[in-house]
Amino acid sequence: MKLSQLCEAIGLVYEGQECEIEAIAPLPDAKPHHLSFVEHDRYLKDLPGTQAAAVLIRKQHADALPAGSQALICDSPYLMMARASALFAHPAPLETPPIIEPDCTIHPNAAIANGSTLGAGCCVMAGVAIGQGVRIGQGVTLHPNVVIYDGAEIGDRVTIHAGSVIGSDGFGYAHTPEGAHVKIHHFGRVIIGSDVEIGANATIDRAVFGQTRIKAGTKIDNLVHIAHNVEIGEHSLLAAQVGFAGSAKTGRNFTIGGQSGVSGHLEVGDFATVAARSGVSKSIEGHKTYAGFPLMEHRLWLRLQARISKLLK
Amino acid sequence: MKLSQLCEAIGLVYEGQECEIEAIAPLPDAKPHHLSFVEHDRYLKDLPGTQAAAVLIRKQHADALPAGSQALICDSPYLMMARASALFAHPAPLETPPIIEPDCTIHPNAAIANGSTLGAGCCVMAGVAIGQGVRIGQGVTLHPNVVIYDGAEIGDRVTIHAGSVIGSDGFGYAHTPEGAHVKIHHFGRVIIGSDVEIGANATIDRAVFGQTRIKAGTKIDNLVHIAHNVEIGEHSLLAAQVGFAGSAKTGRNFTIGGQSGVSGHLEVGDFATVAARSGVSKSIEGHKTYAGFPLMEHRLWLRLQARISKLLK
Amino acid sequence: MKLSQLCEAIGLVYEGQECEIEAIAPLPDAKPHHLSFVEHDRYLKDLPGTQAAAVLIRKQHADALPAGSQALICDSPYLMMARASALFAHPAPLETPPIIEPDCTIHPNAAIANGSTLGAGCCVMAGVAIGQGVRIGQGVTLHPNVVIYDGAEIGDRVTIHAGSVIGSDGFGYAHTPEGAHVKIHHFGRVIIGSDVEIGANATIDRAVFGQTRIKAGTKIDNLVHIAHNVEIGEHSLLAAQVGFAGSAKTGRNFTIGGQSGVSGHLEVGDFATVAARSGVSKSIEGHKTYAGFPLMEHRLWLRLQARISKLLK
Repeated sequence: MKLSQLCEAIGLVYEGQECEIEAIAPLPDAKPHHLSFVEHDRYLKDLPGTQAAAVLIRKQHADALPAGSQALICDSPYLMMARASALFAHPAPLETPPIIEPDCTIHPNAAIANGSTLGAGCCVMAGVAIGQGVRIGQGVTLHPNVVIYDGAEIGDRVTIHAGSVIGSDGFGYAHTPEGAHVKIHHFGRVIIGSDVEIGANATIDRAVFGQTRIKAGTKIDNLVHIAHNVEIGEHSLLAAQVGFAGSAKTGRNFTIGGQSGVSGHLEVGDFATVAARSGVSKSIEGHKTYAGFPLMEHRLWLRLQARISKLLK
Repeated sequence: MKLSQLCEAIGLVYEGQECEIEAIAPLPDAKPHHLSFVEHDRYLKDLPGTQAAAVLIRKQHADALPAGSQALICDSPYLMMARASALFAHPAPLETPPIIEPDCTIHPNAAIANGSTLGAGCCVMAGVAIGQGVRIGQGVTLHPNVVIYDGAEIGDRVTIHAGSVIGSDGFGYAHTPEGAHVKIHHFGRVIIGSDVEIGANATIDRAVFGQTRIKAGTKIDNLVHIAHNVEIGEHSLLAAQVGFAGSAKTGRNFTIGGQSGVSGHLEVGDFATVAARSGVSKSIEGHKTYAGFPLMEHRLWLRLQARISKLLK
Repeated sequence: MKLSQLCEAIGLVYEGQECEIEAIAPLPDAKPHHLSFVEHDRYLKDLPGTQAAAVLIRKQHADALPAGSQALICDSPYLMMARASALFAHPAPLETPPIIEPDCTIHPNAAIANGSTLGAGCCVMAGVAIGQGVRIGQGVTLHPNVVIYDGAEIGDRVTIHAGSVIGSDGFGYAHTPEGAHVKIHHFGRVIIGSDVEIGANATIDRAVFGQTRIKAGTKIDNLVHIAHNVEIGEHSLLAAQVGFAGSAKTGRNFTIGGQSGVSGHLEVGDFATVAARSGVSKSIEGHKTYAGFPLMEHRLWLRLQARISKLLK
């Protein structure tokens, strides 16, 4: 899409140099035919090194752009990016029929879109829907009515139980001054490592850009929610009805009890354990056990409950 | 159905005037061929004005009925209504084939029942099931395995992610003296405004009578539960795993964090914000931020956490 | 499978008597051609009476085995059992086509596997998937995209709303010394009594061995999670987004509010009531009302909230 057309579509006046825009990307990842944006000051550091052809940017920051990048001056770069994201939301249909390796059992009811590949020995049950360009390893079992959106990547020996959804759009919107919400179309994907098992009716959202990643050997129980851009370390155990907000990142062997939640944009160390019904509201060190909301070390939580019991006397 | 047959079916002796009963409705909405009921004293005020042909009612309240309404005297009007609801639970099958406007993409695997209409430019993916008499606007995207029950109404440019269920029966039962539960069949429906987006594996129940309503521009994340007769105001944001109990009503631009809950039969003002993992247990004013369970203003919650920390010293 | 082959497959040296192993079972239930195991000391009492052909057992406990049982000495019996469970995970396909009694309505899109039976007057909607050997009673309604795994048993007049999953594997793993998780394949099933109603997108896991059981007349709301080996008493009411951990057992007429959780391996008495957003962390008596997390009687919880309010003054 021509940059001038893109600007017109999102309501920006643009009289600079014409070029072709192929995609949107964050500053550090943007390639020479990409559009990028800078909303928060903490990303200003990424301006000088970007290769983006054009950057949605506030006037006061435009000077920091390198020579090859066009400044698209606006008051709300994130909102403009959201509008632009709609222009790239529907990738061209793939034409290669799915490639299915030997020894797979595919229910006739399953829908597998073009450009997808399934390794040897997979079992795809009734009502499964696999989007475009999905890559699935060997010996994967997809129980009935599992849905995998476009572009996801699934390792070997993964089992996904009935009704789970992999790769749905994350919950991301820019906001207009009038209080309406403009969808950030999601261009990232989900990558699920080998030997992962996912329970029934769980949901794992695709990334805005980049990846949501469930690393090898992790086990996820029913009705768990994993938001966009989350990264779960190897051999973690997520009990039922747990939820992760966006961009949370855990180490390996993270264990979290049922109905707990993890806030966004934080880090959890290796071998951390969180009790059931807790809320992880800040980054935590590994090799410790936590509980409560706000979260504290489990031994403190026990002491707190003892103090609270005294309040009742 | 004849009123005498209806009474026989639910175990009431009836020797009054015969008439045809076509449906069940609350007192204020009942039309001349409807059955109604009064269980709680707070609805006695609606008795004089009702047009219902017959009303399930306790003996001591029967005198308040207007001349055109037959009193069906019983000890448990709500339980009798529940029994009667089963008699109207299966509406006649519609015969008009679905009407699908141009430029729609309908997966061959999708099931669309009679009497439904889809506006131009809709995309209905694999495994979607659309019930009878569903009305869907223009440019709507239904991801795989979305289920829409009979009679729902969906606005324009709505997106519903995989596995979400719109219009399932609410959780409503009358109780027998022996402790069994008698289903209240639900005759209401779900109305979803334009530009709403609903995440994956969410559930929105139909109303008992009337509507469950999600107003225009609202965005709902994965695994959210919305009970019967809830009304969510315009441009609200409901994060993942939030739950609403029956008949809760919010203003516009209500924002609620993940894993929070909202009790039934309460009101939330415009532009209220509720933090994650909170429980909205009473009606709250708009333009304020709340947290905790029981709920309090967020600034109080922060102060409470500081006091609780002191308990540990 | 020959016992010697089984041992080789899981990495055990075995030079004892050869025999055929047909299944895995806990000590008290094991039959003469079964493999069993003992991990925790609390199950040592079941050793003398077992009929198992062979038992995975630590060296120091082997003497307690009865004469007919071979000791399979190992350091981690549970881990070895997990490995052995994979060998029995795929039962032979059944060959008898499903038996569907008269007056059933089966959507052409539904997938019903061999060996299943449906009683008279059932309604199976679009996208439903029913596994092998499932037994379904009379007058059962399965809304679109319901999934029922192999071997489940559903009573009469049961209604299951769209997207719910019955019989998925429970969340059970043995752990290697290196921190990897080895799946315990589940050989139990789900039994759902008559007149049960289950909301949309709920999940009920099969038992490891034996049954997960929902007794007659119980009503379950949307997005509820019920783990392996749970038993819910008759006429219980489970509100939306409630979760039960494994092997919890409730009496009849248990009522639990939305978003509450119940820990594993505990008992709840008849007619107990638990408020919304509570955590049942220990066994509780019946005929009382509880709230909070940790759980306490509701009247204490109210007093606690009053004391906490004072902290703020």
